[in-house]
Amino acid sequence: MTAERILHPRLRDRVVSAEAAAAWIAPGETVAMSGFTGSGYPKAVPIALAQQIETAHQAGQPFQIKLMTGASTAPELDGALAKADGIALRMPFQTDPDARARINAGKLDYIDIHLSHVAQHVWFGFYGEIDTAVIEVTAIREDGSLVPSTSVGNNKTWLDLAKKIIIEVNEWQPADIDGMHDIYYGTALPPHRKPIPLVHGDDRIGQTTLNCDLDKVVAVVRTNGPDRNSPFTPADETSERIAGHLIEFLKHEVARGRLPANLLPLQSGVGNIPNAVLAGLANSGFRDLEAFTEVIQDGMLDLLKSGVLRYASCTGFALSPAANEEFKRNIAFYRERIVMRTQEISNHPELVRRLGCIGMNGMIEADLYGNVNSTHVMGSRIMNGIGGSGDFARNGFLSAFLSPSTAKNGTISSIVPMVSHVDHTEHDVAVVVTEQGLADLRGLTPKQRARVVIDHCVHPDYRAQLEDYFDRACRDAYGKHTPHLLPEALSWHQRWLDTGTMREG
Amino acid sequence: MTAERILHPRLRDRVVSAEAAAAWIAPGETVAMSGFTGSGYPKAVPIALAQQIETAHQAGQPFQIKLMTGASTAPELDGALAKADGIALRMPFQTDPDARARINAGKLDYIDIHLSHVAQHVWFGFYGEIDTAVIEVTAIREDGSLVPSTSVGNNKTWLDLAKKIIIEVNEWQPADIDGMHDIYYGTALPPHRKPIPLVHGDDRIGQTTLNCDLDKVVAVVRTNGPDRNSPFTPADETSERIAGHLIEFLKHEVARGRLPANLLPLQSGVGNIPNAVLAGLANSGFRDLEAFTEVIQDGMLDLLKSGVLRYASCTGFALSPAANEEFKRNIAFYRERIVMRTQEISNHPELVRRLGCIGMNGMIEADLYGNVNSTHVMGSRIMNGIGGSGDFARNGFLSAFLSPSTAKNGTISSIVPMVSHVDHTEHDVAVVVTEQGLADLRGLTPKQRARVVIDHCVHPDYRAQLEDYFDRACRDAYGKHTPHLLPEALSWHQRWLDTGTMREG
Repeated sequence: MTAERILHPRLRDRVVSAEAAAAWIAPGETVAMSGFTGSGYPKAVPIALAQQIETAHQAGQPFQIKLMTGASTAPELDGALAKADGIALRMPFQTDPDARARINAGKLDYIDIHLSHVAQHVWFGFYGEIDTAVIEVTAIREDGSLVPSTSVGNNKTWLDLAKKIIIEVNEWQPADIDGMHDIYYGTALPPHRKPIPLVHGDDRIGQTTLNCDLDKVVAVVRTNGPDRNSPFTPADETSERIAGHLIEFLKHEVARGRLPANLLPLQSGVGNIPNAVLAGLANSGFRDLEAFTEVIQDGMLDLLKSGVLRYASCTGFALSPAANEEFKRNIAFYRERIVMRTQEISNHPELVRRLGCIGMNGMIEADLYGNVNSTHVMGSRIMNGIGGSGDFARNGFLSAFLSPSTAKNGTISSIVPMVSHVDHTEHDVAVVVTEQGLADLRGLTPKQRARVVIDHCVHPDYRAQLEDYFDRACRDAYGKHTPHLLPEALSWHQRWLDTGTMREG
Repeated sequence: MTAERILHPRLRDRVVSAEAAAAWIAPGETVAMSGFTGSGYPKAVPIALAQQIETAHQAGQPFQIKLMTGASTAPELDGALAKADGIALRMPFQTDPDARARINAGKLDYIDIHLSHVAQHVWFGFYGEIDTAVIEVTAIREDGSLVPSTSVGNNKTWLDLAKKIIIEVNEWQPADIDGMHDIYYGTALPPHRKPIPLVHGDDRIGQTTLNCDLDKVVAVVRTNGPDRNSPFTPADETSERIAGHLIEFLKHEVARGRLPANLLPLQSGVGNIPNAVLAGLANSGFRDLEAFTEVIQDGMLDLLKSGVLRYASCTGFALSPAANEEFKRNIAFYRERIVMRTQEISNHPELVRRLGCIGMNGMIEADLYGNVNSTHVMGSRIMNGIGGSGDFARNGFLSAFLSPSTAKNGTISSIVPMVSHVDHTEHDVAVVVTEQGLADLRGLTPKQRARVVIDHCVHPDYRAQLEDYFDRACRDAYGKHTPHLLPEALSWHQRWLDTGTMREG
């Protein structure tokens, strides 16, 4: 028997079933939910809502919502609602296979937004009003304030702006997470903004709980369910080589005096390759590292445990089941070393620039000139979304983009003449890394960048083909600053669509 | 007879001819000069240097430099050195016809950088060491501190980092400009950065002069020459219609409560269309406007004079000869209303986000999905550079990109299926304006954006053609999130190269 988590009497009186709570949500509403990369999302109300939507559809009644979150969630939220055809519009990020399939079939509208922009753009009124917020918390204190769970995301903004609020209190979340969060209430709309008083990545500038207008709370639901994330694939040779190149580069920068011995605060995207980088850092000889990032995944927990990483600031977790158990078991240890913030703070341009973060993110493809595509397969099919990669690439000290040099059994080259969609421009990309090597693009002209990308990053199977494009472009292009042959610039992608490989005939 | 401008005795002893000063610059050096959009650039040493380079070339000796500035300069600097084939590498921005021709012929290397990145990336060591700084000032005080002239740009960083310094003291610049500048010495390298204590756009947070290590000053040159900018073209009907659409939109945003009655600090790019917007604001009924921008051009001086604009913060000027005379004549008036800052402050992500600037910049082309090309003609030929447009588009409250809907006598559509180069991604563009109308892209999915761009921005001559592309892409694209037909996506540009028009058949 666990201790009572709902300590405010009035809110305890509002405890209802997930079905009763979901019934507060009407067709056409804009619903803002908690959740960031499979952590801290509501576990029960979205499923109940999906059932009510299916029932309505069976009765021939239209029922869809506009759905906002922090970032991606899990099958119980995005999956259930997408399968029920219950989402008219999704933002700002998703990774769900069912949602993705619907988006790319043109059946689900999706808006892909810098994570640092979401809260303020909603607050500015660019996305209309929020009807209902559905927020998972760990506990409700006596005074009605909310102890966040394993992600903060945009919860502060959702609670502030929503007309009605549904709270899920999840007993599966460790009660001792209380105290880990730092919720900053100092943001404002311009012209009333002030400097954000954060100088070190582990500074605490806010409060540990979320404020909540109790009059807006229409329902409270008790849950007891785990955050769900897939286990990471163990690092393979490709990931380890990518990690090795990047870590060697960082050591080189320290040796040249361009980085402090303990680097600068690290931001790490989510996925197997960033996780391999974190694993590589564990045995690299670095000490006193810092992380100012969005998401803590397995590798970062290991770094904290081994003491290589001094602290981590984040807005959510993406932990495998095993890492989740480790986190819960040693929550007292991690609470001293982890600060969880709202995503407007974790990704804030002011702070990313001030701290000089080192951004390390995966990508879909890069081109000769250092433009990076993080979101679209063959120019039109969305994968996940830009997430926070742009926040760190643009405003940090250094931006590295990582990918194996090929995909789909070698039929796709991740280094192409021209990317089929641009998320990070030539102005924002410092370093490109594949298992082949690392291209340091800093201080280089476009043609010099092409040279190092060809020499260091492209797979040998595509090197001659890329070199041939570049040589002919240098000779025949309309302009010789960024030489391109327009009829061929996207031809690799079309060849893959037509023949199943980017390789020439 | 004007009063003596060089009040420090030791520096008065270092006065030499421009030729003698230029002789301090050796082949292969990295030379950092003052200058931002045709203001405050050195008037004599670059010409003398160009002559020495030509003499060397005639003698068969190689002589080129790497040249950094604040932004663009004028014929006496970029033009003279480019014509002499004296520039091996240019950064971070240029607008000179001779330099541009050499860049696009592949004979001059150019790196195009966000203006907010320049000072810090040089300070980080990404561009090697600076050998010589050549800085125009208005005067040298008794204590050796320097009174800046009509641009600040990166001068603080150049003076701090250069191994040797050449100062031009330009008596043409008004002595009473003293007091107008605000040079902030609080920036640092991470991990030592602190919040920048600027809360209102007209706050003064620094000192009025530039610090200078006198031991590094190898030469001082007296000059008396004007800043050179072309007169603006009087606003034509197209510019006025673009301005009209944007101003109507801003009024609408005020009426909807999304903007204060006096808007938010305006950033305005340089050129005839942004100037037309400023002219339009003069008679729009707005009052107490603010400007936090890079450059003050004629229209902004008019707004200050009429009292519509309360103040302007900038890092340089781009004034016609007539406006320059007006500025000098009424310098006491303007000194109370203008603050000149370093470009790391005028374009700083922290401040642009805090103040919530409204960015208004020209563009070369935009595409269906709201990606903007600010720099490249037909994907490979550079025009000028990205300048500060990205700093404001990404981090401000709102970003508007402005262009006539066609160029080159209607043979080029500024709205295309896919831009041939991306400087501002779909994630960063809020509003696109042509004389046809305004597309408000906020809160829209890619396909919804395409609809409003077709309906509001494209020229009627290209509307059916663009609609046909979009309809077929929606039907046939590999993915339906951002529908593109890759073989056709850049075909409009290639058609123009092949046939002289983007029009079909």
